[in-house]
Amino acid sequence: MQFNGNIGLVGTGRMARALALAFENAGVKVQVIAGRNIDKAQEIAELLYETYATDNLDFREVEIDVLIIAVSDSAIEDVSNEIVLPEGAIIAHTSGSIGLEALSNHNDKSGVFYPLQSISVTNQINFKEVPICIEGATLKVHELLTSVAKTIGGKTITIDSEKRLSLHVAAVMASNFTNHLLFQASNILASSDLDLEILKPLMRHTLEKAFRMGPEQAQTGPAIRRDFVTLQKHYDYLGENHELLKLYKELTNSIIKNS
Amino acid sequence: MQFNGNIGLVGTGRMARALALAFENAGVKVQVIAGRNIDKAQEIAELLYETYATDNLDFREVEIDVLIIAVSDSAIEDVSNEIVLPEGAIIAHTSGSIGLEALSNHNDKSGVFYPLQSISVTNQINFKEVPICIEGATLKVHELLTSVAKTIGGKTITIDSEKRLSLHVAAVMASNFTNHLLFQASNILASSDLDLEILKPLMRHTLEKAFRMGPEQAQTGPAIRRDFVTLQKHYDYLGENHELLKLYKELTNSIIKNS
Repeated sequence: MQFNGNIGLVGTGRMARALALAFENAGVKVQVIAGRNIDKAQEIAELLYETYATDNLDFREVEIDVLIIAVSDSAIEDVSNEIVLPEGAIIAHTSGSIGLEALSNHNDKSGVFYPLQSISVTNQINFKEVPICIEGATLKVHELLTSVAKTIGGKTITIDSEKRLSLHVAAVMASNFTNHLLFQASNILASSDLDLEILKPLMRHTLEKAFRMGPEQAQTGPAIRRDFVTLQKHYDYLGENHELLKLYKELTNSIIKNS
Repeated sequence: MQFNGNIGLVGTGRMARALALAFENAGVKVQVIAGRNIDKAQEIAELLYETYATDNLDFREVEIDVLIIAVSDSAIEDVSNEIVLPEGAIIAHTSGSIGLEALSNHNDKSGVFYPLQSISVTNQINFKEVPICIEGATLKVHELLTSVAKTIGGKTITIDSEKRLSLHVAAVMASNFTNHLLFQASNILASSDLDLEILKPLMRHTLEKAFRMGPEQAQTGPAIRRDFVTLQKHYDYLGENHELLKLYKELTNSIIKNS
Protein backbone atom coordinates (compact mmCIF):
# COMPACT_ATOMS: atom_id res chain seq x y z
CA MET A 1 0.00 0.00 0.00
CA GLN A 2 1.96 2.99 -1.24
CA PHE A 3 1.56 5.92 -3.62
CA ASN A 4 3.39 5.37 -6.88
CA GLY A 5 1.59 8.22 -8.60
CA ASN A 6 -1.28 6.29 -10.16
CA ILE A 7 -4.85 7.41 -9.63
CA GLY A 8 -8.23 6.19 -10.78
CA LEU A 9 -11.40 8.25 -10.67
CA VAL A 10 -15.00 7.13 -10.55
CA GLY A 11 -17.52 9.82 -11.44
CA THR A 12 -18.11 12.28 -14.24
CA GLY A 13 -19.39 15.33 -12.37
CA ARG A 14 -17.76 18.60 -11.40
CA MET A 15 -15.58 17.18 -8.65
CA ALA A 16 -14.30 14.28 -10.78
CA ARG A 17 -13.48 16.68 -13.60
CA ALA A 18 -11.75 19.21 -11.32
CA LEU A 19 -9.69 16.49 -9.65
CA ALA A 20 -8.75 14.86 -12.96
CA LEU A 21 -7.42 18.17 -14.29
CA ALA A 22 -5.63 18.99 -11.03
CA PHE A 23 -3.90 15.59 -10.88
CA GLU A 24 -2.92 15.76 -14.52
CA ASN A 25 -1.45 19.26 -14.02
CA ALA A 26 0.45 17.96 -11.00
CA GLY A 27 2.03 15.17 -13.03
CA VAL A 28 0.01 12.42 -11.37
CA LYS A 29 -1.06 9.71 -13.76
CA VAL A 30 -4.85 9.45 -14.00
CA GLN A 31 -5.08 5.91 -15.37
CA VAL A 32 -8.82 5.68 -15.69
CA ILE A 33 -12.09 7.61 -15.49
CA ALA A 34 -15.02 5.34 -14.76
CA GLY A 35 -18.67 6.33 -15.02
CA ARG A 36 -22.07 4.80 -15.68
CA ASN A 37 -22.28 7.17 -18.61
CA ILE A 38 -19.25 6.23 -20.67
CA ASP A 39 -19.65 9.22 -23.04
CA LYS A 40 -19.26 11.61 -20.13
CA ALA A 41 -16.29 9.64 -18.82
CA GLN A 42 -14.81 9.78 -22.33
CA GLU A 43 -15.28 13.58 -22.40
CA ILE A 44 -13.12 13.98 -19.29
CA ALA A 45 -10.60 11.36 -20.42
CA GLU A 46 -10.09 13.34 -23.62
CA LEU A 47 -8.99 16.37 -21.61
CA LEU A 48 -6.12 14.28 -20.24
CA TYR A 49 -2.94 12.94 -21.78
CA GLU A 50 -3.28 9.18 -21.51
CA THR A 51 -6.40 8.16 -19.64
CA TYR A 52 -9.03 5.66 -20.68
CA ALA A 53 -12.74 5.78 -19.98
CA THR A 54 -14.75 2.82 -18.80
CA ASP A 55 -18.05 1.79 -17.26
CA ASN A 56 -16.47 -1.29 -15.72
CA LEU A 57 -15.97 -1.06 -11.94
CA ASP A 58 -13.69 -4.09 -11.74
CA PHE A 59 -10.23 -2.52 -11.46
CA ARG A 60 -8.26 -5.69 -10.64
CA GLU A 61 -6.16 -5.41 -13.80
CA VAL A 62 -5.63 -1.62 -13.57
CA GLU A 63 -2.43 -0.11 -12.24
CA ILE A 64 -3.78 2.26 -9.58
CA ASP A 65 -2.73 3.00 -6.02
CA VAL A 66 -5.74 5.08 -5.11
CA LEU A 67 -9.28 5.08 -6.48
CA ILE A 68 -11.23 8.23 -5.75
CA ILE A 69 -14.98 8.02 -6.12
CA ALA A 70 -16.47 11.42 -6.78
CA VAL A 71 -20.08 10.50 -7.37
CA SER A 72 -23.25 11.96 -5.88
CA ASP A 73 -23.69 11.32 -2.16
CA SER A 74 -26.63 9.01 -2.65
CA ALA A 75 -24.70 6.78 -5.07
CA ILE A 76 -21.49 6.35 -3.05
CA GLU A 77 -22.46 3.21 -1.16
CA ASP A 78 -23.92 1.38 -4.17
CA VAL A 79 -20.97 2.28 -6.37
CA SER A 80 -18.54 1.24 -3.67
CA ASN A 81 -20.24 -2.14 -3.37
CA GLU A 82 -19.67 -2.79 -7.06
CA ILE A 83 -16.03 -1.79 -7.07
CA VAL A 84 -13.27 -4.39 -7.06
CA LEU A 85 -9.87 -2.90 -6.21
CA PRO A 86 -6.52 -4.18 -7.39
CA GLU A 87 -4.18 -5.70 -4.81
CA GLY A 88 -2.75 -3.04 -2.47
CA ALA A 89 -4.95 -0.16 -3.67
CA ILE A 90 -7.17 1.98 -1.47
CA ILE A 91 -10.44 3.79 -2.10
CA ALA A 92 -11.75 7.18 -0.93
CA HIS A 93 -14.90 9.21 -1.46
CA THR A 94 -15.02 13.01 -1.69
CA SER A 95 -18.22 13.84 0.20
CA GLY A 96 -18.62 16.19 3.13
CA SER A 97 -21.79 14.61 4.41
CA ILE A 98 -21.22 10.88 3.94
CA GLY A 99 -19.41 8.82 6.56
CA LEU A 100 -16.53 6.45 6.01
CA GLU A 101 -18.91 3.56 6.58
CA ALA A 102 -20.37 4.00 3.08
CA LEU A 103 -17.17 2.32 1.86
CA SER A 104 -17.27 -0.42 4.50
CA ASN A 105 -17.09 -3.24 1.95
CA HIS A 106 -13.47 -2.15 1.46
CA ASN A 107 -12.76 -2.33 5.20
CA ASP A 108 -9.30 -1.06 6.06
CA LYS A 109 -8.67 0.07 2.49
CA SER A 110 -11.13 2.94 2.77
CA GLY A 111 -10.84 6.66 3.44
CA VAL A 112 -12.27 10.09 2.70
CA PHE A 113 -10.69 12.80 0.55
CA TYR A 114 -12.99 15.83 0.92
CA PRO A 115 -11.84 19.10 -0.66
CA LEU A 116 -13.58 21.92 1.18
CA GLN A 117 -14.61 23.90 -1.87
CA SER A 118 -17.70 24.58 -3.94
CA ILE A 119 -17.15 23.57 -7.52
CA SER A 120 -19.27 25.03 -10.29
CA VAL A 121 -19.49 23.76 -13.84
CA THR A 122 -17.32 26.33 -15.53
CA ASN A 123 -14.87 26.37 -12.75
CA GLN A 124 -11.34 25.05 -12.63
CA ILE A 125 -10.08 24.73 -9.07
CA ASN A 126 -6.67 25.64 -7.77
CA PHE A 127 -6.41 23.02 -5.05
CA LYS A 128 -3.41 24.82 -3.58
CA GLU A 129 -5.94 27.11 -1.92
CA VAL A 130 -8.32 24.37 -0.83
CA PRO A 131 -8.08 22.54 2.50
CA ILE A 132 -8.46 18.81 1.86
CA CYS A 133 -10.06 16.94 4.74
CA ILE A 134 -8.61 13.47 5.15
CA GLU A 135 -9.93 10.47 7.01
CA GLY A 136 -8.49 6.97 6.82
CA ALA A 137 -9.77 3.64 8.14
CA THR A 138 -6.14 3.05 9.11
CA LEU A 139 -3.09 5.24 9.59
CA LYS A 140 -1.65 3.81 6.37
CA VAL A 141 -4.68 4.92 4.37
CA HIS A 142 -4.53 8.30 6.04
CA GLU A 143 -0.88 8.73 5.11
CA LEU A 144 -1.44 7.63 1.55
CA LEU A 145 -4.35 10.04 1.02
CA THR A 146 -2.27 12.82 2.54
CA SER A 147 0.46 12.11 -0.04
CA VAL A 148 -2.15 12.25 -2.79
CA ALA A 149 -3.47 15.60 -1.49
CA LYS A 150 0.03 17.02 -1.40
CA THR A 151 0.56 16.34 -5.10
CA ILE A 152 -2.17 18.87 -5.94
CA GLY A 153 -0.94 21.22 -3.26
CA GLY A 154 -3.92 21.13 -0.90
CA LYS A 155 -3.36 21.82 2.77
CA THR A 156 -4.56 18.66 4.53
CA ILE A 157 -6.62 18.45 7.69
CA THR A 158 -7.40 15.29 9.61
CA ILE A 159 -11.13 15.14 10.17
CA ASP A 160 -13.24 12.15 11.15
CA SER A 161 -16.75 11.52 9.83
CA GLU A 162 -18.49 13.17 12.76
CA LYS A 163 -16.45 16.36 12.55
CA ARG A 164 -16.79 16.34 8.78
CA LEU A 165 -20.58 16.56 9.10
CA SER A 166 -20.33 19.60 11.34
CA LEU A 167 -17.81 21.14 8.93
CA HIS A 168 -20.21 20.49 6.06
CA VAL A 169 -23.13 22.12 7.89
CA ALA A 170 -20.93 25.14 8.67
CA ALA A 171 -19.74 25.34 5.06
CA VAL A 172 -23.32 25.30 3.76
CA MET A 173 -24.34 28.00 6.27
CA ALA A 174 -21.41 30.19 5.33
CA SER A 175 -20.95 29.60 1.64
CA ASN A 176 -24.22 28.44 0.06
CA PHE A 177 -26.34 30.77 2.17
CA THR A 178 -24.09 33.78 1.57
CA ASN A 179 -24.37 33.18 -2.13
CA HIS A 180 -28.16 33.10 -1.73
CA LEU A 181 -28.10 36.37 0.20
CA LEU A 182 -26.13 37.87 -2.69
CA PHE A 183 -28.80 36.55 -5.03
CA GLN A 184 -31.52 38.23 -2.96
CA ALA A 185 -29.46 41.43 -2.74
CA SER A 186 -28.96 41.45 -6.50
CA ASN A 187 -32.74 41.25 -7.03
CA ILE A 188 -33.33 44.16 -4.64
CA LEU A 189 -30.66 46.20 -6.42
CA ALA A 190 -32.02 45.32 -9.85
CA SER A 191 -35.41 46.71 -8.84
CA SER A 192 -33.63 50.07 -8.39
CA ASP A 193 -31.53 49.72 -11.56
CA LEU A 194 -28.42 49.07 -9.51
CA ASP A 195 -25.89 46.33 -10.14
CA LEU A 196 -24.65 43.81 -7.58
CA GLU A 197 -21.13 44.97 -8.43
CA ILE A 198 -21.70 48.00 -6.18
CA LEU A 199 -21.53 45.67 -3.15
CA LYS A 200 -18.18 44.10 -4.09
CA PRO A 201 -15.90 46.32 -1.96
CA LEU A 202 -18.30 46.03 0.99
CA MET A 203 -18.43 42.24 0.73
CA ARG A 204 -14.67 41.87 0.42
CA HIS A 205 -14.26 44.06 3.45
CA THR A 206 -16.94 42.11 5.34
CA LEU A 207 -15.08 38.83 4.83
CA GLU A 208 -11.69 40.27 5.55
CA LYS A 209 -12.98 41.82 8.77
CA ALA A 210 -14.88 38.72 9.94
CA PHE A 211 -11.80 36.53 9.54
CA ARG A 212 -9.48 39.10 11.12
CA MET A 213 -11.58 40.27 14.10
CA GLY A 214 -13.92 37.28 14.38
CA PRO A 215 -17.56 37.63 13.26
CA GLU A 216 -18.82 38.38 16.77
CA GLN A 217 -16.69 41.52 16.98
CA ALA A 218 -17.21 42.41 13.34
CA GLN A 219 -21.01 42.53 13.35
CA THR A 220 -22.46 45.89 12.32
CA GLY A 221 -25.83 47.09 11.04
CA PRO A 222 -29.28 48.00 12.35
CA ALA A 223 -29.97 44.65 14.07
CA ILE A 224 -26.94 44.67 16.36
CA ARG A 225 -27.52 48.39 17.06
CA ARG A 226 -31.14 47.56 17.87
CA ASP A 227 -32.02 50.39 15.52
CA PHE A 228 -35.71 49.55 15.26
CA VAL A 229 -36.52 52.65 13.23
CA THR A 230 -34.23 51.54 10.40
CA LEU A 231 -35.39 47.93 10.76
CA GLN A 232 -39.01 49.06 10.39
CA LYS A 233 -38.07 51.02 7.25
CA HIS A 234 -36.51 47.88 5.84
CA TYR A 235 -39.57 45.80 6.78
CA ASP A 236 -41.76 48.37 5.04
CA TYR A 237 -39.52 48.38 2.01
CA LEU A 238 -39.73 44.59 1.70
CA GLY A 239 -43.40 44.59 2.74
CA GLU A 240 -44.90 43.03 -0.36
CA ASN A 241 -42.19 40.46 -0.79
CA HIS A 242 -43.43 38.24 2.03
CA GLU A 243 -40.84 35.52 1.59
CA LEU A 244 -37.89 37.90 1.60
CA LEU A 245 -39.38 39.86 4.51
CA LYS A 246 -39.61 36.63 6.51
CA LEU A 247 -35.99 35.82 5.73
CA TYR A 248 -34.87 39.34 6.66
CA LYS A 249 -36.74 39.15 9.98
CA GLU A 250 -35.42 35.67 10.77
CA LEU A 251 -31.81 36.79 10.29
CA THR A 252 -32.39 40.06 12.13
CA ASN A 253 -33.94 38.27 15.11
CA SER A 254 -31.09 35.80 15.15
CA ILE A 255 -28.55 38.65 15.30
CA ILE A 256 -30.50 40.32 18.12
CA LYS A 257 -30.84 37.07 20.11
CA ASN A 258 -27.14 36.36 19.83
CA SER A 259 -25.82 39.73 20.88
CA MET B 1 -20.64 77.60 -3.07
CA GLN B 2 -17.36 75.89 -3.93
CA PHE B 3 -14.87 73.49 -2.40
CA ASN B 4 -11.77 75.25 -1.10
CA GLY B 5 -10.64 72.22 0.88
CA ASN B 6 -12.25 73.03 4.22
CA ILE B 7 -14.40 70.47 5.97
CA GLY B 8 -16.31 70.36 9.22
CA LEU B 9 -17.55 67.18 10.86
CA VAL B 10 -20.40 66.70 13.30
CA GLY B 11 -20.33 63.39 15.16
CA THR B 12 -17.86 61.37 17.20
CA GLY B 13 -18.67 57.81 16.14
CA ARG B 14 -16.91 55.41 13.80
CA MET B 15 -17.91 57.13 10.59
CA ALA B 16 -16.88 60.60 11.82
CA ARG B 17 -13.53 59.24 12.97
CA ALA B 18 -12.89 57.30 9.73
CA LEU B 19 -13.79 60.33 7.61
CA ALA B 20 -11.69 62.70 9.74
CA LEU B 21 -8.61 60.51 9.28
CA ALA B 22 -9.26 59.98 5.58
CA PHE B 23 -9.66 63.71 4.90
CA GLU B 24 -6.57 64.54 6.94
CA ASN B 25 -4.55 61.94 5.01
CA ALA B 26 -5.82 63.39 1.75
CA GLY B 27 -4.65 66.87 2.70
CA VAL B 28 -8.13 68.24 3.25
CA LYS B 29 -8.36 70.62 6.17
CA VAL B 30 -10.71 69.33 8.86
CA GLN B 31 -11.43 72.62 10.62
CA VAL B 32 -13.70 71.34 13.33
CA ILE B 33 -15.12 68.23 14.98
CA ALA B 34 -18.39 68.95 16.74
CA GLY B 35 -20.15 66.61 19.12
CA ARG B 36 -22.51 66.68 22.09
CA ASN B 37 -19.76 64.93 24.00
CA ILE B 38 -16.87 67.35 23.71
CA ASP B 39 -14.37 64.89 25.22
CA LYS B 40 -15.04 62.44 22.42
CA ALA B 41 -14.79 65.23 19.86
CA GLN B 42 -11.50 66.24 21.45
CA GLU B 43 -10.21 62.67 21.17
CA ILE B 44 -10.69 62.70 17.41
CA ALA B 45 -9.41 66.27 17.04
CA GLU B 46 -6.19 65.21 18.74
CA LEU B 47 -5.58 62.63 16.01
CA LEU B 48 -5.49 65.45 13.50
CA TYR B 49 -3.01 68.21 12.79
CA GLU B 50 -4.91 71.39 13.44
CA THR B 51 -8.54 70.74 14.28
CA TYR B 52 -10.56 72.07 17.15
CA ALA B 53 -13.33 70.32 19.04
CA THR B 54 -16.61 71.96 19.96
CA ASP B 55 -20.14 71.28 21.14
CA ASN B 56 -21.40 74.44 19.48
CA LEU B 57 -23.45 73.86 16.33
CA ASP B 58 -23.37 77.48 15.19
CA PHE B 59 -20.70 77.45 12.47
CA ARG B 60 -21.28 80.98 11.13
CA GLU B 61 -17.75 82.08 12.04
CA VAL B 62 -16.02 78.86 10.90
CA GLU B 63 -14.23 78.63 7.57
CA ILE B 64 -15.86 75.53 6.09
CA ASP B 65 -17.21 74.73 2.64
CA VAL B 66 -18.88 71.47 3.59
CA LEU B 67 -20.23 70.24 6.91
CA ILE B 68 -20.68 66.49 7.11
CA ILE B 69 -22.92 65.20 9.86
CA ALA B 70 -22.05 61.63 10.75
CA VAL B 71 -24.34 61.08 13.71
CA SER B 72 -26.76 58.23 14.40
CA ASP B 73 -29.73 58.02 12.05
CA SER B 74 -32.23 58.97 14.71
CA ALA B 75 -30.31 62.16 15.61
CA ILE B 76 -29.77 63.53 12.10
CA GLU B 77 -32.89 65.65 11.84
CA ASP B 78 -32.61 67.17 15.34
CA VAL B 79 -28.92 67.92 14.90
CA SER B 80 -29.56 69.43 11.48
CA ASN B 81 -32.22 71.72 12.94
CA GLU B 82 -29.71 73.12 15.41
CA ILE B 83 -26.97 73.73 12.88
CA VAL B 84 -26.26 77.20 11.51
CA LEU B 85 -24.06 77.12 8.43
CA PRO B 86 -21.67 79.85 7.33
CA GLU B 87 -22.48 81.74 4.14
CA GLY B 88 -22.00 79.58 1.05
CA ALA B 89 -21.46 76.29 2.87
CA ILE B 90 -23.43 73.09 2.33
CA ILE B 91 -24.37 70.22 4.62
CA ALA B 92 -24.59 66.46 4.04
CA HIS B 93 -25.42 63.42 6.16
CA THR B 94 -23.81 60.00 5.77
CA SER B 95 -26.73 57.63 6.31
CA GLY B 96 -27.94 54.89 4.01
CA SER B 97 -31.45 54.81 5.40
CA ILE B 98 -32.30 58.47 5.99
CA GLY B 99 -33.72 60.62 3.22
CA LEU B 100 -32.47 64.03 2.15
CA GLU B 101 -35.56 65.57 3.76
CA ALA B 102 -34.03 65.14 7.23
CA LEU B 103 -31.87 68.14 6.32
CA SER B 104 -34.76 70.14 4.89
CA ASN B 105 -34.13 73.15 7.13
CA HIS B 106 -31.06 73.76 4.96
CA ASN B 107 -33.11 73.61 1.76
CA ASP B 108 -30.96 73.75 -1.35
CA LYS B 109 -27.76 73.57 0.68
CA SER B 110 -28.34 69.92 1.61
CA GLY B 111 -27.09 66.60 0.32
CA VAL B 112 -26.10 63.05 1.21
CA PHE B 113 -22.59 61.62 1.33
CA TYR B 114 -23.05 57.89 2.04
CA PRO B 115 -19.95 55.69 1.92
CA LEU B 116 -21.12 52.14 1.24
CA GLN B 117 -18.98 50.43 3.85
CA SER B 118 -19.30 48.89 7.25
CA ILE B 119 -17.05 50.59 9.73
CA SER B 120 -15.99 48.87 12.92
CA VAL B 121 -14.35 50.49 15.89
CA THR B 122 -10.81 49.34 15.30
CA ASN B 123 -11.04 49.86 11.65
CA GLN B 124 -9.39 52.47 9.47
CA ILE B 125 -11.03 52.71 6.08
CA ASN B 126 -9.33 53.08 2.74
CA PHE B 127 -12.02 55.09 0.98
CA LYS B 128 -10.33 54.49 -2.36
CA GLU B 129 -12.09 51.12 -2.32
CA VAL B 130 -15.44 52.43 -1.12
CA PRO B 131 -18.21 53.62 -3.43
CA ILE B 132 -19.57 56.92 -2.10
CA CYS B 133 -23.24 57.49 -2.88
CA ILE B 134 -23.99 61.13 -3.55
CA GLU B 135 -27.28 63.00 -3.57
CA GLY B 136 -27.67 66.76 -3.79
CA ALA B 137 -30.69 69.02 -3.36
CA THR B 138 -29.24 70.87 -6.35
CA LEU B 139 -26.72 70.08 -9.05
CA LYS B 140 -24.30 72.48 -7.36
CA VAL B 141 -24.46 70.55 -4.09
CA HIS B 142 -24.08 67.30 -5.98
CA GLU B 143 -20.97 68.57 -7.76
CA LEU B 144 -19.45 69.90 -4.58
CA LEU B 145 -19.98 66.63 -2.70
CA THR B 146 -18.50 64.74 -5.64
CA SER B 147 -15.38 66.92 -5.38
CA VAL B 148 -15.18 66.14 -1.67
CA ALA B 149 -15.51 62.39 -2.33
CA LYS B 150 -12.75 62.54 -4.92
CA THR B 151 -10.29 63.95 -2.42
CA ILE B 152 -10.43 60.71 -0.44
CA GLY B 153 -10.44 58.66 -3.60
CA GLY B 154 -13.90 57.13 -3.43
CA LYS B 155 -15.69 56.16 -6.59
CA THR B 156 -18.88 58.23 -6.59
CA ILE B 157 -22.33 57.08 -7.55
CA THR B 158 -25.38 59.29 -7.94
CA ILE B 159 -28.20 57.79 -5.90
CA ASP B 160 -31.42 59.45 -4.78
CA SER B 161 -33.03 58.79 -1.40
CA GLU B 162 -35.40 56.12 -2.72
CA LYS B 163 -32.65 54.11 -4.41
CA ARG B 164 -30.42 54.60 -1.39
CA LEU B 165 -32.95 52.80 0.80
CA SER B 166 -33.00 49.80 -1.52
CA LEU B 167 -29.20 49.85 -1.62
CA HIS B 168 -29.12 49.91 2.16
CA VAL B 169 -31.50 46.95 2.44
CA ALA B 170 -29.38 45.02 -0.06
CA ALA B 171 -26.19 45.92 1.81
CA VAL B 172 -27.64 44.69 5.10
CA MET B 173 -28.81 41.46 3.47
CA ALA B 174 -25.44 40.82 1.89
CA SER B 175 -22.98 42.16 4.43
CA ASN B 176 -24.53 42.10 7.93
CA PHE B 177 -26.30 38.81 7.36
CA THR B 178 -23.23 37.14 5.84
CA ASN B 179 -21.24 38.16 8.88
CA HIS B 180 -23.95 36.62 11.05
CA LEU B 181 -23.82 33.38 9.05
CA LEU B 182 -20.07 33.32 9.67
CA PHE B 183 -20.81 33.78 13.36
CA GLN B 184 -23.19 30.83 13.32
CA ALA B 185 -20.71 28.77 11.30
CA SER B 186 -17.93 29.58 13.75
CA ASN B 187 -20.09 28.28 16.63
CA ILE B 188 -20.82 25.05 14.78
CA LEU B 189 -17.12 24.60 14.03
CA ALA B 190 -16.11 25.40 17.61
CA SER B 191 -18.37 22.61 18.84
CA SER B 192 -16.15 20.24 16.82
CA ASP B 193 -12.88 21.94 17.84
CA LEU B 194 -12.50 23.46 14.40
CA ASP B 195 -11.60 27.05 13.66
CA LEU B 196 -13.51 29.41 11.35
CA GLU B 197 -10.23 29.93 9.50
CA ILE B 198 -10.81 26.62 7.72
CA LEU B 199 -13.63 28.28 5.74
CA LYS B 200 -11.54 31.20 4.51
CA PRO B 201 -10.55 29.81 1.09
CA LEU B 202 -14.12 28.59 0.50
CA MET B 203 -15.59 31.99 1.40
CA ARG B 204 -13.16 33.91 -0.77
CA HIS B 205 -13.96 31.61 -3.64
CA THR B 206 -17.70 31.95 -2.97
CA LEU B 207 -17.54 35.74 -3.27
CA GLU B 208 -15.25 35.73 -6.26
CA LYS B 209 -17.53 33.28 -8.06
CA ALA B 210 -20.78 35.09 -7.16
CA PHE B 211 -19.45 38.38 -8.53
CA ARG B 212 -17.95 36.78 -11.63
CA MET B 213 -20.75 34.39 -12.64
CA GLY B 214 -23.66 36.05 -10.84
CA PRO B 215 -25.09 34.44 -7.69
CA GLU B 216 -27.88 32.69 -9.59
CA GLN B 217 -25.37 30.70 -11.66
CA ALA B 218 -22.95 30.28 -8.76
CA GLN B 219 -25.36 28.62 -6.30
CA THR B 220 -24.22 25.18 -5.15
CA GLY B 221 -25.05 22.93 -2.20
CA PRO B 222 -27.73 20.50 -1.05
CA ALA B 223 -30.68 22.94 -1.34
CA ILE B 224 -30.22 23.77 -5.03
CA ARG B 225 -29.52 20.10 -5.77
CA ARG B 226 -32.70 19.22 -3.86
CA ASP B 227 -30.58 16.70 -2.01
CA PHE B 228 -33.11 15.98 0.72
CA VAL B 229 -31.03 13.20 2.25
CA THR B 230 -28.18 15.60 3.03
CA LEU B 231 -30.62 18.31 4.12
CA GLN B 232 -32.23 15.87 6.55
CA LYS B 233 -28.78 15.03 7.95
CA HIS B 234 -28.15 18.71 8.50
CA TYR B 235 -31.57 19.16 10.14
CA ASP B 236 -30.80 16.23 12.43
CA TYR B 237 -27.38 17.64 13.22
CA LEU B 238 -28.88 21.02 14.18
CA GLY B 239 -31.87 19.34 15.84
CA GLU B 240 -31.45 20.63 19.34
CA ASN B 241 -30.49 24.13 18.32
CA HIS B 242 -34.05 25.15 17.40
CA GLU B 243 -33.21 28.71 16.48
CA LEU B 244 -30.37 27.78 14.15
CA LEU B 245 -32.40 24.94 12.64
CA LYS B 246 -35.19 27.41 11.85
CA LEU B 247 -32.70 29.75 10.18
CA TYR B 248 -31.14 26.90 8.20
CA LYS B 249 -34.57 25.76 6.99
CA GLU B 250 -35.67 29.29 6.12
CA LEU B 251 -32.60 29.85 3.94
CA THR B 252 -32.83 26.37 2.42
CA ASN B 253 -36.49 26.86 1.51
CA SER B 254 -35.71 30.24 0.03
CA ILE B 255 -33.03 28.70 -2.21
CA ILE B 256 -35.42 25.95 -3.30
CA LYS B 257 -38.28 28.39 -4.02
CA ASN B 258 -36.01 30.60 -6.11
CA SER B 259 -34.47 27.95 -8.31
